[in-house]
Amino acid sequence: MERLPIRTRLARVEHDRILIRGHDLCQDLLGSISFADMTGLMLIGRLPAANERRMLDALLIVLVEHGIVSSVINARLTYHTAPESIQAAVAASLLGAGSVHLGSSDICARMLQEGLAAQPELEAAAEGIAARFAAARQRIPGIGHRTHPGGDPRAERLFAIARETDVYARHCQLLELVVDAAEQHVGRRLPVNVTGAIAAISLDLGLPWQISKAFALIGRTLGTMAHIREEIEDPAAPAIDAAIKGALQVEPSP
Amino acid sequence: MERLPIRTRLARVEHDRILIRGHDLCQDLLGSISFADMTGLMLIGRLPAANERRMLDALLIVLVEHGIVSSVINARLTYHTAPESIQAAVAASLLGAGSVHLGSSDICARMLQEGLAAQPELEAAAEGIAARFAAARQRIPGIGHRTHPGGDPRAERLFAIARETDVYARHCQLLELVVDAAEQHVGRRLPVNVTGAIAAISLDLGLPWQISKAFALIGRTLGTMAHIREEIEDPAAPAIDAAIKGALQVEPSP
Amino acid sequence: MERLPIRTRLARVEHDRILIRGHDLCQDLLGSISFADMTGLMLIGRLPAANERRMLDALLIVLVEHGIVSSVINARLTYHTAPESIQAAVAASLLGAGSVHLGSSDICARMLQEGLAAQPELEAAAEGIAARFAAARQRIPGIGHRTHPGGDPRAERLFAIARETDVYARHCQLLELVVDAAEQHVGRRLPVNVTGAIAAISLDLGLPWQISKAFALIGRTLGTMAHIREEIEDPAAPAIDAAIKGALQVEPSP
Amino acid sequence: MERLPIRTRLARVEHDRILIRGHDLCQDLLGSISFADMTGLMLIGRLPAANERRMLDALLIVLVEHGIVSSVINARLTYHTAPESIQAAVAASLLGAGSVHLGSSDICARMLQEGLAAQPELEAAAEGIAARFAAARQRIPGIGHRTHPGGDPRAERLFAIARETDVYARHCQLLELVVDAAEQHVGRRLPVNVTGAIAAISLDLGLPWQISKAFALIGRTLGTMAHIREEIEDPAAPAIDAAIKGALQVEPSP
Repeated sequence: MERLPIRTRLARVEHDRILIRGHDLCQDLLGSISFADMTGLMLIGRLPAANERRMLDALLIVLVEHGIVSSVINARLTYHTAPESIQAAVAASLLGAGSVHLGSSDICARMLQEGLAAQPELEAAAEGIAARFAAARQRIPGIGHRTHPGGDPRAERLFAIARETDVYARHCQLLELVVDAAEQHVGRRLPVNVTGAIAAISLDLGLPWQISKAFALIGRTLGTMAHIREEIEDPAAPAIDAAIKGALQVEPSP
Repeated sequence: MERLPIRTRLARVEHDRILIRGHDLCQDLLGSISFADMTGLMLIGRLPAANERRMLDALLIVLVEHGIVSSVINARLTYHTAPESIQAAVAASLLGAGSVHLGSSDICARMLQEGLAAQPELEAAAEGIAARFAAARQRIPGIGHRTHPGGDPRAERLFAIARETDVYARHCQLLELVVDAAEQHVGRRLPVNVTGAIAAISLDLGLPWQISKAFALIGRTLGTMAHIREEIEDPAAPAIDAAIKGALQVEPSP
Repeated sequence: MERLPIRTRLARVEHDRILIRGHDLCQDLLGSISFADMTGLMLIGRLPAANERRMLDALLIVLVEHGIVSSVINARLTYHTAPESIQAAVAASLLGAGSVHLGSSDICARMLQEGLAAQPELEAAAEGIAARFAAARQRIPGIGHRTHPGGDPRAERLFAIARETDVYARHCQLLELVVDAAEQHVGRRLPVNVTGAIAAISLDLGLPWQISKAFALIGRTLGTMAHIREEIEDPAAPAIDAAIKGALQVEPSP
Repeated sequence: MERLPIRTRLARVEHDRILIRGHDLCQDLLGSISFADMTGLMLIGRLPAANERRMLDALLIVLVEHGIVSSVINARLTYHTAPESIQAAVAASLLGAGSVHLGSSDICARMLQEGLAAQPELEAAAEGIAARFAAARQRIPGIGHRTHPGGDPRAERLFAIARETDVYARHCQLLELVVDAAEQHVGRRLPVNVTGAIAAISLDLGLPWQISKAFALIGRTLGTMAHIREEIEDPAAPAIDAAIKGALQVEPSP
């Protein structure tokens, strides 16, 4: 049987050094660069410029913490029953980063990337997207938010930073034009939400659409660890259990 | 049924703002602080000083990438069969961060924290630990490394940064004394490895032992996303499959 | 804040008994029914008849074991680095049951269920499905198999059992008609594969399309546990690691 | 680099047949054996006798359903935010099967297996176990239950079936003697609980201690799928969310 090569460009691991995309981890990176620099090196393929670093830091921070959301419930309950396996509690938390919540940035990013590929002219691309979703009577990913109906302050801040850092480019612009075009179709203004902003900015930074989810996953890993620390010191799992039992209603089996 | 309060101090989420440990996410944090600052705020409970930030960045970076290790295999194979669910590929990767590999920093951290609690005098604590493991004929967590037998260059660099940043304190010192004490017992010098260095430094930064695993989990989430990007552009899964099939040997059933 | 009820019909848990869909677990079910009966009770909503039980047993068994496939690799590598957390190794294995492999039964089931809802006449529904996929130049889920090009023996056997047990009905028939219609479009006969057979039979048993994945997940949980037992007694993880290292080719970073 | 063989005895996959421990899956197993038979074949290594099959069915069924427990919460919340990935919801559920809940059968099984290995005489082994835990002021795994303080009816029924099927042997007996011995030490009778019964019976069936967790994991995979079906038809996730928000109390940050 012929042996196919398993190829990677990311790292060369030797006995006395580790090269990451050609940089010596111990001599050139550790102690010299920040985690946002490392994020650029790993995901974009090069060390970012200072303005890009500021943008990457904002993307990495923005989803770290949003209170006792469902991914946090998963983590706290999993920690409570399997405290020997903290990585499992974090994994249970990340598994909720799907199409409906947290993980929807890739759906929006795909829409923007494919929209521009099909129609390079921005206003026409925006109108095309808005018309397609209106015809299908579907919500457009990346705009509108249940908890922040008047505008997601995180999205506004991310776009402001994108402008300040000159990262703001065609994909950010397209998403803002989609808001305008959608308003014509649905008669209501649904501002850019946080996952939409992450999606557009990720694309303008050069990431493919699938990888825009990195910021949610990295951020929530940190946030989850903070909730696990809190759970260790002041367990909420019994109160979560009690809240659920208090609302339980067992229906007769049909 | 009495309702118990589900308590958290981490965040207060309101319609137009999100307060994280009292800081306004959009006004005070986004665009102003780095991810390492956010890590300090979330895990230590306060924004770190400049020297601590440099240390945190090094801890966050050190485990991001180590080639095609088993957690990367998990991620690439999971992505290959479930590309619609990138969070699942990342979760599969993190699940390997257990007691044997990657996740062993918490075992070392617990040993150091409990060792010092039982015996505050450093040399006696180190001797106590070394003697206990020698008697049980067990390997001491946090020292020795298969791939880097002559000394893990990442551990040396982390300890150098810990000294430069003045983070180096009693737990780092204890682990180095454990190396000396263990050499007396086993007749061979097993230097501090990377998970040991992370463990000791985490404790000196004020984290409880369980949370030292945060650096492995955050780092590998980033590293895994880079491998998934590479897998999208140049799939290795078929070659991994072929390599395994090529080595397969089906034994007769007894 | 108004409290919404959390409703369930599945179980009522009391101090001295557990009622599952109205049956007393200890008095009526344990010792009296088989796991396939329980599967019917939980997923269809009633205890199955004898012929349905035979069909359910076949569905539960068919995907238990298929050698060292990628989900098994995930489980063995995860067990190797996190042996303290066997549930994590099983979870890592299940996470690969996605759209490309193992988990594709739900995609096929959805196609069949929605195809019949749109067009109740079977031949027209089959032609509609085949034409749509041919136009999109996509592979039809549930037919064709890489390892078993001449026909998946598991699918043939499942359909034979479906006929013997009288479970075979409109969804099974539709999938066989899709094979015929697709042959007209692509000029090549792609027989029903095992996930297609599971999909069609699940629907004929009364399950909604999303739940057809149950058989893959239950079966692979059992299969994974058998591989973990083998891994404990005769570890393959080092050989897997060596096979991958042997095929590794680090490319120059661009 | 020398290539190590990746060995397995479980299956031989050929183009037109699949042999599982020497049995032809399609000709000999599908349609002929039950899932409990397959469980014996995979985990014990041979097809079980009729009495063992009855015991295996009871073990497979007993943990399928126990109401809206925390692993079910995890599954429902994960499904709600990532409905495209049902395997992820099941994985999130299984990740909670750890040392505190559901997964504790392996801890009890290890205690029994190692207890008998150290002291083959049953009463002395039981007294040794009870004395050791009393000295450490720890709870003995496998006895006592919060929800069923007067005796877990599932455990009693499993042991009754173990006696009826002649599976009941030294490990079951040892666990019952541990209850007696512990009563002398703690002054209170803590009856065998359901995970304890599973542990002891698994060992008497010939499984190694680590694999006793199989019954929890297989059972909960089925139970989780039933809850996901219910969640699809009558979503509880919003009510779970509301119950938690209703009990939330954000503390001032220190």
